[in-house]
Amino acid sequence: MLDFDFHNPTRIVFGKDRLAELDTLVPAGATVLVLYGGGSVRRFGTLDKVRAALENGRTVHEFGGIEPNPRYETLLKAVEKVRSDGVDFLLAVGGGSVMDGTKFVSLASVHDGDPESLLYHGFAGVPAAKALPLGCVVTLPATGSEMNMGGVISKGDGKFPVLCPLTFPKFSILDPTLTYSLPARQVANGVVDTFVHVMEQYLTFPVEGRFQDRTSEGILLTLIEIGRYTIDHPEDYDARANLVWCATMGLNGLIGSGVPQDWATHMIGHEITSLYGLDHGQTLAIILPALMDVRRDAKREKLLQYAERIWNITGGTDDERIDAAIARTRAFFESLGVKTRLSDHKLGVEHFDAVIKGLEAKGLTAMSERGDQTLEVSRNVLKAAL
Amino acid sequence: MLDFDFHNPTRIVFGKDRLAELDTLVPAGATVLVLYGGGSVRRFGTLDKVRAALENGRTVHEFGGIEPNPRYETLLKAVEKVRSDGVDFLLAVGGGSVMDGTKFVSLASVHDGDPESLLYHGFAGVPAAKALPLGCVVTLPATGSEMNMGGVISKGDGKFPVLCPLTFPKFSILDPTLTYSLPARQVANGVVDTFVHVMEQYLTFPVEGRFQDRTSEGILLTLIEIGRYTIDHPEDYDARANLVWCATMGLNGLIGSGVPQDWATHMIGHEITSLYGLDHGQTLAIILPALMDVRRDAKREKLLQYAERIWNITGGTDDERIDAAIARTRAFFESLGVKTRLSDHKLGVEHFDAVIKGLEAKGLTAMSERGDQTLEVSRNVLKAAL
Repeated sequence: MLDFDFHNPTRIVFGKDRLAELDTLVPAGATVLVLYGGGSVRRFGTLDKVRAALENGRTVHEFGGIEPNPRYETLLKAVEKVRSDGVDFLLAVGGGSVMDGTKFVSLASVHDGDPESLLYHGFAGVPAAKALPLGCVVTLPATGSEMNMGGVISKGDGKFPVLCPLTFPKFSILDPTLTYSLPARQVANGVVDTFVHVMEQYLTFPVEGRFQDRTSEGILLTLIEIGRYTIDHPEDYDARANLVWCATMGLNGLIGSGVPQDWATHMIGHEITSLYGLDHGQTLAIILPALMDVRRDAKREKLLQYAERIWNITGGTDDERIDAAIARTRAFFESLGVKTRLSDHKLGVEHFDAVIKGLEAKGLTAMSERGDQTLEVSRNVLKAAL
Repeated sequence: MLDFDFHNPTRIVFGKDRLAELDTLVPAGATVLVLYGGGSVRRFGTLDKVRAALENGRTVHEFGGIEPNPRYETLLKAVEKVRSDGVDFLLAVGGGSVMDGTKFVSLASVHDGDPESLLYHGFAGVPAAKALPLGCVVTLPATGSEMNMGGVISKGDGKFPVLCPLTFPKFSILDPTLTYSLPARQVANGVVDTFVHVMEQYLTFPVEGRFQDRTSEGILLTLIEIGRYTIDHPEDYDARANLVWCATMGLNGLIGSGVPQDWATHMIGHEITSLYGLDHGQTLAIILPALMDVRRDAKREKLLQYAERIWNITGGTDDERIDAAIARTRAFFESLGVKTRLSDHKLGVEHFDAVIKGLEAKGLTAMSERGDQTLEVSRNVLKAAL
């Protein structure tokens, strides 16, 4: 097992009808900015309930319109509002984009220099000394942002990870019933996103991280069991609750502690979303199976473990078992209604140069747990995804 | 899935040779009391390393002699020392007893009334408004105390759970190499303690806690794989690291969130330790298999799940599978060198009245996840443990 630090101070408040508890979770007398995305949180009454809970001696402002893949320019407008209204607590009400954006606002609002510089610290993290406190009300299970210290912010053609321990939410309310009204496509994307988060902390090389491996496998098996079911039965509480909790546990630092990680699928996926507008989950469902195929030698032992423990594949040669595991993974994503080929989105070899150029511009020329995924290898992954 | 809150702010610092980091983990200029048990932490040089790290502008005091099943009277002496020396940070260096005791000292040192009252809040928790901050250096993997808010304190014939969110350690250093010198018996007890902690959060009735179930099963499978091995190969780093991390994850609140729990095995075990001096782990290895047997109807579905997923038992009638699972559990404990019968310790029916009386005195007359384990049922568990 590798050495690690693990620290996750976010309080999780999980269950039905718990929005009223915002009154005890948010500091008394605070001036709160509630951030959200489109109008659905208003349409389905969530925003009214949030306001009702907060308006007990607090001043409540609102900032709507945070888009999927939240944009730097939009968030700067929220920063202006924080400053002009004297806001001292941020409440994100939404999915990953709203939570990610709120984290950026929490840093940028009290940042002295150019806020753009916050985008360029990468996985090393922002060395900030202060941030506004924030909480979350989660309406879309997918990104795990509700219990981690990271977000991804879009500017121009780029998607930039922004990480800082000060942006762990103070609390996150996870009420599975708030996700009942989500479109099937967003739920499917959330299942894929969670699945791939887990795979990126699991599919590397073995280091005797037995707890981590089995916990990862537990999330994968659960997603396979309830993924399609919760799309077809959006108001089955238990199925949705399992998706919500798996999404959180898939990216809160736990399963990645003490083991290598490989975020190449996300990095390539981000380029495709930035350039061609595919949903984040759609890009992951395309890239992961292709990467498993191309990287089969580097990841052989864990691929075989995955084949056996997740898909019960034990017969045939090593490569036959790996092929079967990739096919099952692809079939699972397709069963959710998420396509797994670039050609399904009318993308072809003519689009590869731009993707590779984007990776190069961000210095992603030696990805993977071994640092051996060159741009050439990434191009091969794209080829395998055609 | 049941509603739940989860909040665990302890920072874990896991790996080899990390004691020097105490200098960044403990506040600068603090007056520190280092608490420990017997002389082994001094004999093996751990205390010297701790001192070397802390003595960078800090005043360091020591309090040794915290016994297994830490006693109230001993801890009051530490409280006196905290007050007379103006201590403002506590550092536990040891196993569960030292960590549990340190948590009690952290509460009692700043408690205004009679410290004895802290013993009597049970699982409702101590409603304290303040506590001294504390950190841990773990030398024995077993209780999970390094990442939770609880401890068990002994006074007279009684063992009293003392829980308070203020006593979450600020940090815990988990260095598996610090456990190499442990006697085999203590390691075996630690494996059993962890196994039983997990079972008490798992072996109830199903509530669709899929993540929780699978994470619990992952810990159980890991313990079965590495339990005997790490006793025989105490300096195999990875095996010991897996034990250490499983012990922590087995009782930090995670696997018990959103599912029913049943702590009857621990409660009966505590009585036996108090009355007859058996090791804590020894009592658990005796009571758990007996309880599985007696409670098979109430716990049928989870017993069958346990039989299949942990022991791969799928043939025969339900009761045959349950019998087989109990036998395998018993054989596992015995393989660690831990006996599983009261008679192995020369205890018989003549000792039951005192145990039952002890449970009754603590109001433990309706234990289990359903509240249906009466004193009569507990007596039947003792009978099945003969």
